[in-house]
Amino acid sequence: MSSRHALAPARPVEDHRRRIEDALRPLAGRSAETVPMDRALGRVLAEDVYSPLDLPVFRNSAMDGYAVAAESVAIVPATLPLIGVVAAGNTEQVTLPPGAAVKVMTGAPVPPGADCVVPVEHTSSDGVTVTIKTSRAAGDFVREPGTDVRTGDLLAAAGTPLRPRHIAALAAVGLGEVRVLRRVRAAVLTTGDELRPAGSILLPGQIFNSNGTALAAALEDNGVEVVSVAHSTDEHDEFRARLAEAVARADVVFTSGGVSMGDFEVVKEVLAAQGGEFGAVAMQPGGPQGLSTVDGVPVLSFPGNPVSTMVSFEVFARPILRELAGLPALPISELPLLDSVRSPAGKRQFLRGKLVEGGVALATGQGSHLIVSMAQAEVLIEIPAAVTEVAAGTIVEVRPL
Amino acid sequence: MSSRHALAPARPVEDHRRRIEDALRPLAGRSAETVPMDRALGRVLAEDVYSPLDLPVFRNSAMDGYAVAAESVAIVPATLPLIGVVAAGNTEQVTLPPGAAVKVMTGAPVPPGADCVVPVEHTSSDGVTVTIKTSRAAGDFVREPGTDVRTGDLLAAAGTPLRPRHIAALAAVGLGEVRVLRRVRAAVLTTGDELRPAGSILLPGQIFNSNGTALAAALEDNGVEVVSVAHSTDEHDEFRARLAEAVARADVVFTSGGVSMGDFEVVKEVLAAQGGEFGAVAMQPGGPQGLSTVDGVPVLSFPGNPVSTMVSFEVFARPILRELAGLPALPISELPLLDSVRSPAGKRQFLRGKLVEGGVALATGQGSHLIVSMAQAEVLIEIPAAVTEVAAGTIVEVRPL
Repeated sequence: MSSRHALAPARPVEDHRRRIEDALRPLAGRSAETVPMDRALGRVLAEDVYSPLDLPVFRNSAMDGYAVAAESVAIVPATLPLIGVVAAGNTEQVTLPPGAAVKVMTGAPVPPGADCVVPVEHTSSDGVTVTIKTSRAAGDFVREPGTDVRTGDLLAAAGTPLRPRHIAALAAVGLGEVRVLRRVRAAVLTTGDELRPAGSILLPGQIFNSNGTALAAALEDNGVEVVSVAHSTDEHDEFRARLAEAVARADVVFTSGGVSMGDFEVVKEVLAAQGGEFGAVAMQPGGPQGLSTVDGVPVLSFPGNPVSTMVSFEVFARPILRELAGLPALPISELPLLDSVRSPAGKRQFLRGKLVEGGVALATGQGSHLIVSMAQAEVLIEIPAAVTEVAAGTIVEVRPL
Repeated sequence: MSSRHALAPARPVEDHRRRIEDALRPLAGRSAETVPMDRALGRVLAEDVYSPLDLPVFRNSAMDGYAVAAESVAIVPATLPLIGVVAAGNTEQVTLPPGAAVKVMTGAPVPPGADCVVPVEHTSSDGVTVTIKTSRAAGDFVREPGTDVRTGDLLAAAGTPLRPRHIAALAAVGLGEVRVLRRVRAAVLTTGDELRPAGSILLPGQIFNSNGTALAAALEDNGVEVVSVAHSTDEHDEFRARLAEAVARADVVFTSGGVSMGDFEVVKEVLAAQGGEFGAVAMQPGGPQGLSTVDGVPVLSFPGNPVSTMVSFEVFARPILRELAGLPALPISELPLLDSVRSPAGKRQFLRGKLVEGGVALATGQGSHLIVSMAQAEVLIEIPAAVTEVAAGTIVEVRPL
């Protein structure tokens, strides 16, 4: 047994993030699928959508009232013969004789011969005639065809993440389904002989596997479809088999564990042999990182400490995954840090914090294994690599967790 | 036929919102269900969750390195006999003899007899002995049991909306499922003889039904489970039947249409006869509103113009539904309105706007039927009821759509 500990210079966080983003950004061109409109919320349009019709489709009333020719009510009060009622949904074709009135409901067709609507509040009626008390100009309370949208107008452009307001518009022109991009498909593959699934009886030296569940939740939370969550021991052959399954199903694979400087680093050993790049990134927690491509599929390898895994996801994966899913970018705010901290030279430090009156404070428990403590944290605080001491009150960059 | 148009004084927006919130807030006490951890994201905890174990479960190493007694490395360099390797997941019980060293991987048990770990970077080894180059104090790089969480500690309180970080913590203590509140269940019931489903051939006077799809999307977007989306004509008997079905399945029912001053106001006519309150709210769009209780189920009745329906949802339903779902409150910002507008006296006006450089501008098309135009709007701009003219540059309240 011999030890090799040649410490390559740590790569800056931004470099590794850029490499990951370059590897994932081609997924923006992933294939499309057709979904019914009631499953389209939050999905990203794969193509421009144009209106197949004019809206309004027909000239209709903006009010409950009486459709008349404006010239019939030029002098008021004017009492006109009432020829009937047109309800919304009335599909009979009515024509208004000169000098008459027809009762119309909001949304009902305004018949030829009428050019305005007098709201019911400004009228009285005995059922046979209607007395109009206010004059109206041609066009008043009449919605003309095509004033909302015209046939062939762009309703929403390719790349639009569909919000309820877009779905309302697409439904209004009668579209029942829509072409959207597939969600990005991710596979999660945790490693480590010590990890046991929930519900197991732990032997001494074993712990529960939280990275699989946590990474899957984080992916789902950022618009990604999780196609598998699997686990491998530190055996090379088993890892190779699980990796092959993951790569076959997913657009991107996330591994945890097996990337550090120990004797049993299955992820690094297997993937480095296939051309993957592994090494230290100048950050804490989360220093050891890997990025590989297997059969054209990017494989992001995070360290196995639960806090390191989650911080790696936040720093390297979350921004580009949100971009690919059409989700809004996370707001980065600048707030005073109410605690003083020391930070290791040459490493960007990511501290877990809580929003408090007047700024942000450190959450209790900053060790990379303190995953329960991390649940109390609301934000990630970033301390630049060049900074080794931060006085209380210093403005720091903060992003939501 | 006679016309009654007694105009009751319009109710202020805040009054109607408060009545709706009072009707819906009891749903905070809705029943709980058990879900597997991988389905728990975004759900609201129904009960406090306590840790069933200490974390770390056992004393373990924070680094890849050598576990020794600190006194063995008080004088360095010190060359110690190497008794073996403890990997993470190693379940054999090893005890360290005095004066010896054992190689340990990150997360591996630190054996009795050792009280610190020397990182591998500060050592060299020939496989039989290890030479330690730096002294260490007892406790260095050793994670003690229970330093993350102790058995019985509160992990997350009832009412917590589960984020990935909570799921990571619950998984780390081995929980495979969790008790969460049922989602609020909503039924959507649109009305109007003129409305036709997507894919229909429209006859003159007919339009596509967009309110059903749009309300369902808006509900889903705010953490609500939509249990049914149905439509009724303006026939009283049909509406009663569809309403009974909706009330039987849902915690809350949303209707659209049939609440105004026309001759065929099925929602108002049926529900007012059962004690529902219908009347004008001092707002534009969305003035006519109803609130009823049928078999203990609140029924919110919105007007049928598509823009009025969506604005009603935003103003009256969305804030309380987000609260019930454990979603963050929508941020209300104050921005300069770059256009000048007139606003009707005595009505709070909700304009659709777009965020632009330096403030907010009106979206094109403010009519209550302009649903396609509304898709271009990103925010709702609020003009107070007392204001009739707003000069360009005035600060207005803006909420995201």
